[in-house]
Amino acid sequence: MSTKAKSSPRERLLEAAATLTYQDGVNIGIDALCKAAGVSKRSMYQLFESKDDLLTASLEERASAYVAALLPAGDDARPPRERVLHVFAQAEAEARAPDFRGCRYLVAQIELKDPGHPASGVARRVKEKVTAFFRAEAEQGGAGDPDLLARQLILVFDGASARAGIRADTPAGLLAPTVTVLLDAAGVR
Amino acid sequence: MSTKAKSSPRERLLEAAATLTYQDGVNIGIDALCKAAGVSKRSMYQLFESKDDLLTASLEERASAYVAALLPAGDDARPPRERVLHVFAQAEAEARAPDFRGCRYLVAQIELKDPGHPASGVARRVKEKVTAFFRAEAEQGGAGDPDLLARQLILVFDGASARAGIRADTPAGLLAPTVTVLLDAAGVR
Repeated sequence: MSTKAKSSPRERLLEAAATLTYQDGVNIGIDALCKAAGVSKRSMYQLFESKDDLLTASLEERASAYVAALLPAGDDARPPRERVLHVFAQAEAEARAPDFRGCRYLVAQIELKDPGHPASGVARRVKEKVTAFFRAEAEQGGAGDPDLLARQLILVFDGASARAGIRADTPAGLLAPTVTVLLDAAGVR
Repeated sequence: MSTKAKSSPRERLLEAAATLTYQDGVNIGIDALCKAAGVSKRSMYQLFESKDDLLTASLEERASAYVAALLPAGDDARPPRERVLHVFAQAEAEARAPDFRGCRYLVAQIELKDPGHPASGVARRVKEKVTAFFRAEAEQGGAGDPDLLARQLILVFDGASARAGIRADTPAGLLAPTVTVLLDAAGVR
């Protein structure tokens, strides 16, 4: 972390939480987080109420940028079909990273096993934004059943991410043909 | 556990590992496992080399029964299309359980974050059996690209299971229409 010396204890804790929980899981210990951030436990507890609070803040901090990087710009003039395929092309590119372990917002929810956990709430809202995008494009593109198409698309999104994350498959040659079939069947040309 | 008194320490440890890792994650401590099984740590280490060994054995123990319950019988006379839909109907029924947290073989791999872990290997082989079933039915049913269809089907299987496990969606009204679209597009009538 070359910027360590310049960033604040709060920023370093958020960075360590994002990196280590993604790499090792949400059950990573507080000692490991503080050590990686170069921050004392005492300082950590002055900044965050608990490890759960730190985890929640670290997911929240990246949420807007994640959604913005995934979705096409609002004034993108391409038709809905291409805008949907754009999201899956982004997802495919993301999955190519050597340290990819699946979408962090899916994985966090799976590991927390508690829909009521504040961090699960943050992760759920990220997914709801992506689903809402699919729903709006489906409607705009004239889908026969926009709700169904949106559910199908986020299902494929999460399934591909989970399977790429465990190295069971890669999205290449899979995501685009699958999404195309679903768009065709829904009547989105 | 009404059968606790009758079952062996080994059986109780396997049962506790299966139940608690599914409920709380693969990072559940060895003390909690031994306590739930009513077995001393000393006895546990006489039966299993490590917690990883116990986890691997607990996944292995249920693997055959899981696959058998999911797939139609080998002498089932229905056409491939119906045999594939049968698997998704089973998955949908499984996801209705109040304590459903996703397919344990997917979740274990996500949580372990190590394809080289022996327990990941057990889980991966379970999924490969299901994928091989889809591949064989796709070929039998005349799919244009049986490999692609098999990849699509296991992607939908895992995606639906992950999303149902985190309560983001339910397979009802989603799995059957999605699988039908994919079978239609592949030419499996």
